Amino acid sequence: MSALNKNEITVFAPATVANVVCGFDILGFALDGLFDKMLIRKTNKKGVTIINKDDYNLPTQPDKNVIGAALLALLEAVPENIGFIVESTKIIKPGSGIGSSAASAAGAVVGANHLLNNRFSNQELVEFALCGEAVASGSKHADNIAPCIYGGITLIRSTTPLDIISIPSPTLYVTIVHPQIEVKTSEARQILKKQILLKDAIIQWGNIAGLIAGLMKSDYDLIGRSLVDVIVEPVRSILIPHFDEIKQKSMEAGALGGGISGSGPSVFFLSKDEKTAKTIEKAISNVYKNINIDFNTHVTTISNRGVKVQ
Amino acid sequence: MSALNKNEITVFAPATVANVVCGFDILGFALDGLFDKMLIRKTNKKGVTIINKDDYNLPTQPDKNVIGAALLALLEAVPENIGFIVESTKIIKPGSGIGSSAASAAGAVVGANHLLNNRFSNQELVEFALCGEAVASGSKHADNIAPCIYGGITLIRSTTPLDIISIPSPTLYVTIVHPQIEVKTSEARQILKKQILLKDAIIQWGNIAGLIAGLMKSDYDLIGRSLVDVIVEPVRSILIPHFDEIKQKSMEAGALGGGISGSGPSVFFLSKDEKTAKTIEKAISNVYKNINIDFNTHVTTISNRGVKVQ
Repeated sequence: MSALNKNEITVFAPATVANVVCGFDILGFALDGLFDKMLIRKTNKKGVTIINKDDYNLPTQPDKNVIGAALLALLEAVPENIGFIVESTKIIKPGSGIGSSAASAAGAVVGANHLLNNRFSNQELVEFALCGEAVASGSKHADNIAPCIYGGITLIRSTTPLDIISIPSPTLYVTIVHPQIEVKTSEARQILKKQILLKDAIIQWGNIAGLIAGLMKSDYDLIGRSLVDVIVEPVRSILIPHFDEIKQKSMEAGALGGGISGSGPSVFFLSKDEKTAKTIEKAISNVYKNINIDFNTHVTTISNRGVKVQ
Repeated sequence: MSALNKNEITVFAPATVANVVCGFDILGFALDGLFDKMLIRKTNKKGVTIINKDDYNLPTQPDKNVIGAALLALLEAVPENIGFIVESTKIIKPGSGIGSSAASAAGAVVGANHLLNNRFSNQELVEFALCGEAVASGSKHADNIAPCIYGGITLIRSTTPLDIISIPSPTLYVTIVHPQIEVKTSEARQILKKQILLKDAIIQWGNIAGLIAGLMKSDYDLIGRSLVDVIVEPVRSILIPHFDEIKQKSMEAGALGGGISGSGPSVFFLSKDEKTAKTIEKAISNVYKNINIDFNTHVTTISNRGVKVQ
C-alpha cells in the first residue's frame, strides 16, 4: 500500500524555540531529535478521538485538547464524513517552553493532511493548528507552530493575514536547559507592559533586522551581536531561576547568544559548534546543581525539517 | 599625479532615503544620479574653510556648518598640521528629506579621507560625519550618512556602538517627489510619541524582518508586503500635503510600497521597473498640480555606490 493510500500513519513533531531573543512573537525555529510521537488513523465517522499514551493526564475531550481542537478545525474544511483517532505519546513536557502544545497541534494536522492526500497548504495547516494552540495558551501565536510545520527558522511577518517566511541559516547548535519549574504562558504574557518606549523598540527592530541579515549572510558574529532583547527579557527573566548567571556563564562559554525559549522556563543558547554547545550545557548544569534545581538538558541543532510522517 | 597624491579632489555625494517605511532610524538607501558636489583641497594649516557655491545661504563658520563640523571631527583624529578648504555646490535642497545634510557631511569626510590616503575605515568616517549631521538635525542619526558612504541599502543595527550592515537587494526603482513645503527634522521628531504599544511594535519588527528577508531573497512581493509602518507614518503623514491620496494613487499605479522619505516632506515609492516608477511620478504630480502645490520629482534607482571621488 503506498503512503498516499494509507489510513494510518505515525507522525514525529519537533520541539521548537519561539521568540529567539529579539524576535518576540515573530520568530521561531525547529529542534532536531526532540519530538512528540502520534499515531493517527482516519475513520469513516465524523469527529476526533484522543487516546493519551503518556503520563501527562491531558484532557481527552476533543475541544479541550490541543490535538482535538486542531483536528476539529481541519475537519470543518473537509466535506467528507471522516474523522480521526489519535494515539498521542508526548515526549516534550507540557509547559516546558519548547513548543509542546504546538508540536501536538502541528503534528496532528500535518498527519491528518497526509491521510487526506495533502490537500491543504502548509499555511492552511498553520491556521488549523493555531486553533489547537489557542486551547493551551489562550491566544493564537504561530511562532512555535510555523517552525514545527515548515522546519528551520521561520518568520511570522504578520498574523492577520498569516504571512510565514522561511529564513535560511548556517548550521547552528542549540543548548536547551529546562529547569523543572512551572511558568504559565498566559502569566508570562500578563507581566509584559502594554506600552514600551519608542527608543527601546528602535533598538529591538535594529536587532531583529540584524539577526535576519546575519542568518541569511551566515555571519555568526552578526547573529551574536543581534541576539539582544531590551523589551521582553528584562521583564520575563525574573521568572527563570538565576537567569542572569546562566546567561553570563553561557556567554563566557562561547555562546553566540540566547535567552528564554518561548515564555520559559526553558532557556536556549546558540553556538557555532557542538563542543561549545556542550560546554554551555555543562556551565548551566553547574549553576542549577549548586542551587538544587532539577533540570534537564539537550544539545542539538536547528532542524531544517518540520513534522515528519512515516 | 596619481589620485593618492593629489591635494585636491572633487566629490559627488548622493542623496539618500532614510527610515524606508518600517525601518525608522535604522535603514536607509543611496539614490543614483542625485548628488551634491564638493571641491576639497588639503592645506598645511589646521582648520576648515567653507566656501558655498550655491544660493542656500548656509553658514560658513566651520562649527556651525555640516561640512565644517564633520571635518573638524575628522581633523581631531589627524596628528598632522593640516586643514581643508571646501567649495560646496549643493544640488540636494536642504530640508527636502533626502539626506541633504548627510550628503554634505559624508561627502566631506570621504573626500578628506581620500586626501589622507584612506587611513580611516568607513565606520570611522560615519562617526565623523555624524558630528556634522548633528549640527543640522540636533541629533546623531546615521540612517542617511551610512548609505551615503557605503552605497546601497544599509542597516544601522546599533548606534552605540555603531554597527552598519550592507543589505543586498534586487534592482529597485525609486520615485521621489518633493513638495515645496518645509518640515523641520527636529519638529518631525518632536511630534512622535515617546511610548508606543507593544502590539504595534511587534507588527513593526515583523515588517522590518520581512523587508530584510525580502531584499536578501530578491522577493519583490515580500518587499511590498513588508513596507508597512504602523508607528511613525500615522503620526508624521499629517505633515505631508495629501499624503494618503498620493500613497493610494502610487499603490494603484503599481508601487511595491513607499512613504515618507526621512522626516519628509519628500515621499518615495519603490517599484520593480522604470515604467511603473514613471507612472507613479505622473500620478503624484497630478495630485499636487490639482491642489497647486509646487513640487519636483525624480525617477531613479537605488545606487550601489556611495560617495564618489574624482
